[in-house]
Amino acid sequence: MLLEAVYHRPKLNWCYAYDGHTIHLRIRTKRDDVTAVSAMAGDKYIWDQSMSYVPMHKLAADELFDYWECEIVPEYRRLKYGFLLENGPEKYWMTEYDFLKQPPENPDRLFEYPFINPADVFKTPEWVKDAVFYQIFPERFANGDPSIDPTGALPWGGTPERDNFFGGDLQGVIDHVDHLSKLGVNAIYFTPLFTATTNHKYDTEDYMQIDPQFGNIETLKKLVGICHERGIRVLLDAVFNHSGRTFAPFVDLQKNGENSRYKDWFYIREFPIAVQDGIPTYDTFAFEPLMPKLNTDNAEVKEYLLKAAAYWIEEADIDGWRLDVANEVDHEFWREFRRVVKKLKPDAYILGEIWHESSPWLMGDQFDAVMNYPFTNAVLDFFVDGIGDARNFANAIGKQFSRYPRQANEVAFNLLDSHDTARLLTKCDGNKDKMKLAAQFQFTYTGAPCIYYGDEIGMTGGHDPDCRKCMEWDEAKQDQELFSFYQELIRLRLKYSALRTGNLTFLSAEEGSANLVYTREDAKDKIVVFMNNAAKPQNIEVAVEEDSWEDIRSGEAISARLGALNIKLPAYGCVMLRVV
Amino acid sequence: MLLEAVYHRPKLNWCYAYDGHTIHLRIRTKRDDVTAVSAMAGDKYIWDQSMSYVPMHKLAADELFDYWECEIVPEYRRLKYGFLLENGPEKYWMTEYDFLKQPPENPDRLFEYPFINPADVFKTPEWVKDAVFYQIFPERFANGDPSIDPTGALPWGGTPERDNFFGGDLQGVIDHVDHLSKLGVNAIYFTPLFTATTNHKYDTEDYMQIDPQFGNIETLKKLVGICHERGIRVLLDAVFNHSGRTFAPFVDLQKNGENSRYKDWFYIREFPIAVQDGIPTYDTFAFEPLMPKLNTDNAEVKEYLLKAAAYWIEEADIDGWRLDVANEVDHEFWREFRRVVKKLKPDAYILGEIWHESSPWLMGDQFDAVMNYPFTNAVLDFFVDGIGDARNFANAIGKQFSRYPRQANEVAFNLLDSHDTARLLTKCDGNKDKMKLAAQFQFTYTGAPCIYYGDEIGMTGGHDPDCRKCMEWDEAKQDQELFSFYQELIRLRLKYSALRTGNLTFLSAEEGSANLVYTREDAKDKIVVFMNNAAKPQNIEVAVEEDSWEDIRSGEAISARLGALNIKLPAYGCVMLRVV
Repeated sequence: MLLEAVYHRPKLNWCYAYDGHTIHLRIRTKRDDVTAVSAMAGDKYIWDQSMSYVPMHKLAADELFDYWECEIVPEYRRLKYGFLLENGPEKYWMTEYDFLKQPPENPDRLFEYPFINPADVFKTPEWVKDAVFYQIFPERFANGDPSIDPTGALPWGGTPERDNFFGGDLQGVIDHVDHLSKLGVNAIYFTPLFTATTNHKYDTEDYMQIDPQFGNIETLKKLVGICHERGIRVLLDAVFNHSGRTFAPFVDLQKNGENSRYKDWFYIREFPIAVQDGIPTYDTFAFEPLMPKLNTDNAEVKEYLLKAAAYWIEEADIDGWRLDVANEVDHEFWREFRRVVKKLKPDAYILGEIWHESSPWLMGDQFDAVMNYPFTNAVLDFFVDGIGDARNFANAIGKQFSRYPRQANEVAFNLLDSHDTARLLTKCDGNKDKMKLAAQFQFTYTGAPCIYYGDEIGMTGGHDPDCRKCMEWDEAKQDQELFSFYQELIRLRLKYSALRTGNLTFLSAEEGSANLVYTREDAKDKIVVFMNNAAKPQNIEVAVEEDSWEDIRSGEAISARLGALNIKLPAYGCVMLRVV
Repeated sequence: MLLEAVYHRPKLNWCYAYDGHTIHLRIRTKRDDVTAVSAMAGDKYIWDQSMSYVPMHKLAADELFDYWECEIVPEYRRLKYGFLLENGPEKYWMTEYDFLKQPPENPDRLFEYPFINPADVFKTPEWVKDAVFYQIFPERFANGDPSIDPTGALPWGGTPERDNFFGGDLQGVIDHVDHLSKLGVNAIYFTPLFTATTNHKYDTEDYMQIDPQFGNIETLKKLVGICHERGIRVLLDAVFNHSGRTFAPFVDLQKNGENSRYKDWFYIREFPIAVQDGIPTYDTFAFEPLMPKLNTDNAEVKEYLLKAAAYWIEEADIDGWRLDVANEVDHEFWREFRRVVKKLKPDAYILGEIWHESSPWLMGDQFDAVMNYPFTNAVLDFFVDGIGDARNFANAIGKQFSRYPRQANEVAFNLLDSHDTARLLTKCDGNKDKMKLAAQFQFTYTGAPCIYYGDEIGMTGGHDPDCRKCMEWDEAKQDQELFSFYQELIRLRLKYSALRTGNLTFLSAEEGSANLVYTREDAKDKIVVFMNNAAKPQNIEVAVEEDSWEDIRSGEAISARLGALNIKLPAYGCVMLRVV
């Protein structure tokens, strides 16, 4: 047994409270190195009477490791535990101190989950587990009120440039909310709506005002009201890492320099404020002079931003915040942010933009979830760019899934493209079948899928600014077949909870193969998904225990033969079967 | 190269800000498996211009692993990084996603430390790095005011029982502060002083009152004032996990049951409040009916306890809090506690009682340090109980040291005994030489050592209550030789910063050996410590680069011969040499 591969550390994703009574324990071993793992667990104060061995199951695997999990409901909300690792007759007991060949004599040296305190339980919003998001870049979705177009706005449908405008606004969204209902999404993520100079609005001028070219607070309230009536939640984008250059405190600072009363609202490395050889003399987002970094450790700044965070919930009843450049802002700020937001709306969704490993933000005190870029990269690598085989893909997914507590995975924000990337169809070189296959994985995986506006009707676009084209409203130019495909995918996801929160097991994800087969299973349903990620038709066969299945799209009955399902799939085809 | 052994995870002890400008990176490899490790690091927004390879050095090792570290001061306070692992010609680049045989093409998939935000920098009190603590169990240290003895107090020096009293009090401490000054300690840790029914006072009745049998707030203020004049800091013990049964809210609850307005101050599983088959119907510390667990998620409870935390700092000017059963209280409470305490006294010391791996509390938002029981266990195993050899000992120390950020290690609370354990001399079966050797490790290791009252004069005692004997004030019965030994040890520790915060390297810690040789080195000094942990004299030889040394106790000059120091040590002997 390779002891160097075995890993466990208390708390984090390794030992956490899933709810007020339940603890999840996880441990890592070398892949295929261990035949059985169990947790030895009990109450530390009555160890001898309470200790028992709890079998663990394989939660996930990646290239090097297997991840094991079990669930324990300790009677007195506290747990002492160790692990028993078995490879046939070879046995090791793992304690906090050592690996032992005999059961530990001294339970004091085991691990502990000291007490499930309600305040520390990481609660994520239930509704996000069932959410399908739709991302709107408001300047480009629909122009519903030409009277508020910015000066120089171009006719709808022109070529997007870094700095041009087309007059998209909130009234436009209101006008087209039927499109969203028809598609079936139940949540919108808006990129920033607040007053700013750019078309993307990530350079906030006033956190308390809707940009006049989008409307005003009344338009937003109306929009949120209409959405809520239709069961659609609304997520706004908060840019708290930095402001824009026209933000009043920074304007004051530019004017008054060291004498400005806003001197400590930013991080000024050197006065006067200037840009030298492309490097601002003040901290910014990247080296972007337009975006001075806010000092979120300053009590006034904190108060102002938290007031904004509260204001839009209280006034416009929004359902959560997506947080731009979230990892560059201090943890202390986010902890206060969570307290403020959750107090006003306990099921508000707090979503951080973090492109990297995010466990420091996903422990219950800061975010509910992050933009799931490791998922994005895994899907794009395998389904779109043809990098790696099915095994590599399953490994990447397993690695991502094992990193966070289950409640964070269940509300992860799973995107395949956005205003920051080329569009999915374009990445697929226009191959709709490839695009659909990627989307089908997205919609049958744990975490809330998000559709970038227009993807559902076949819009294309390379990197920013090309991915920010005006939404196509001419139905003749919309890909209706693709729209129907997404409609059905959403319907299926919402119909079967197994596709949202069921356990995932890869049945086939082999080296050198483009075939992927996996099950999603919960107490209600067991669904097996067959995917052929190759440019030619393939037959895929996997062993199954159940005989009777049905195609969840067509309703067609399918029987296993001799304990196996054999499915013929066209190039980039996908079939989903449910045990009946 | 064993890739399964390689471990790094952003933040925690693996990538943290040591101060507002400095990042420490660490990575783990299989022991003796890798010849060189370097970090490839730069600014994410100007990667190509800023990337460089920074060599890492071996920080520590344990049974299975080597731990490598380097320090980086990134110009713009943010860092993108990966690692290059080398074993001769074999090379691997580690990214957040993979191990690669070539340098990563895509820097996006490296790790990140997003930004050093001042609010998140884990600052621990400077003074604790230089502190030598003395633990006082006030009921048994000295009786300075017989007029406030509890009823039935026994004559000083009687046999301690679980529930008897001898009249120790704060005036007694004031009367004997010369003893502490003479010994040379510069900090006192008091077990609880607040009103309670037991002799140990861990069942608090009133968090706002000094127990009348110890004195009153004026006595405490006087004591703290006298201590401060002598450069002695004062740490009190806060029992916030549970109250006593006589705490007014719990008294009300016992009286009024479900109708009590304090119902939500505790966790009542079932009314009426009772003890059934030894199990209280309410949550407690362990199953101790005397100690009902406080609901620290209740705003009123929180306010009350935080008021107490603030009160004793504001009124009595204490220098910090030791927190009883700290891991069973919620993290949210401790975060607020830290904010309150550090606001009043930025260099207050916050010390948690946690017997287990404590990284979830040592990330800058909660405690400065914990009672370092893994250190205690390692020292007792090797020096006292003869379990394991020098290599096992060095492994245990390496494992403990690698777990936490350096600033936490520097202020760890390193105890060898306490009111909860048998006394050190008793554990050593009365062998003073063994006791001294253990103490010499304690005083030459990173973290603040603590002497349990009376150890310095040779007091003995088995487990509680025997370890809580009355302090021996008859000088004829005090072991003056031992007192001098401790005096000198303290003097040496305070004289040489290398012994406090210098880097530690084991020069000799071999399998099967009882010889231990290690260096402590900082910019000022390099000291080598030779220890013979065997019952017979031994010669220990180690290779050294420097020729001229002096014995830091005797001042005797010692020369290396042919690049080695050869030191003859008596049974359990220890010599410390300094490069001159």
